[in-house]
Amino acid sequence: MFNLMVEYYAPALDRVYAALADPTRRAILMRLTRHDARVTELAAPFDMSLNAVSKHLRVLEEAGLIRREVRGRDHHLSLDATPLQEAAAWLETYRQFWSRRLDRLEAFLSQKKSSKRRKSSR
Amino acid sequence: MFNLMVEYYAPALDRVYAALADPTRRAILMRLTRHDARVTELAAPFDMSLNAVSKHLRVLEEAGLIRREVRGRDHHLSLDATPLQEAAAWLETYRQFWSRRLDRLEAFLSQKKSSKRRKSSR
Repeated sequence: MFNLMVEYYAPALDRVYAALADPTRRAILMRLTRHDARVTELAAPFDMSLNAVSKHLRVLEEAGLIRREVRGRDHHLSLDATPLQEAAAWLETYRQFWSRRLDRLEAFLSQKKSSKRRKSSR
Repeated sequence: MFNLMVEYYAPALDRVYAALADPTRRAILMRLTRHDARVTELAAPFDMSLNAVSKHLRVLEEAGLIRREVRGRDHHLSLDATPLQEAAAWLETYRQFWSRRLDRLEAFLSQKKSSKRRKSSR
């Protein structure tokens, strides 16, 4: 159990996945791939209060996904996609399992097809 | 704003990322890559109540990441990695951004190095 927890206790990964589990936060990240933006610009497309958007921004900041630069009164936000790399790497370890299942489905379907063919040629 | 929300409103993705945002749930998924297991087998390595583990299992089930088959008294659980494919595909769209940042860092470091070399050769 100790090994299990050492291996999977990754607070950074927890924060990144939790940050991604919301459509507004994913939309903000996508918006920032185009160019940096001020908080008000980021909030404009959403039908929610500036305060609600600010909460989402804090979650993204704590996950290390956005950086904030204060210039006078304005807060400029930019994307930092680096933590997504670890999240993607973790998911990659499962690639063989999702393809394996599709392989099994394919094998099943082709088997079904050939048994149908055999039946109809009787 | 409507387009933004249509594009990013993906409840399945919300549930998958939320399910992954916990080390116990990630450990359970990793355990199930080896072979199917009963609830008690899955709970054994963790220092938590069977009830707490069951809650984690429900989160994973609701995200479509595990399947439950009831055989008599036993609940057998197996991995379904299919939803991870969409989560990985979403992250892949950011690959260019995490590499771009590393490229910039590399460019910055090599620039620094060569300016140092120029200074020391004066």
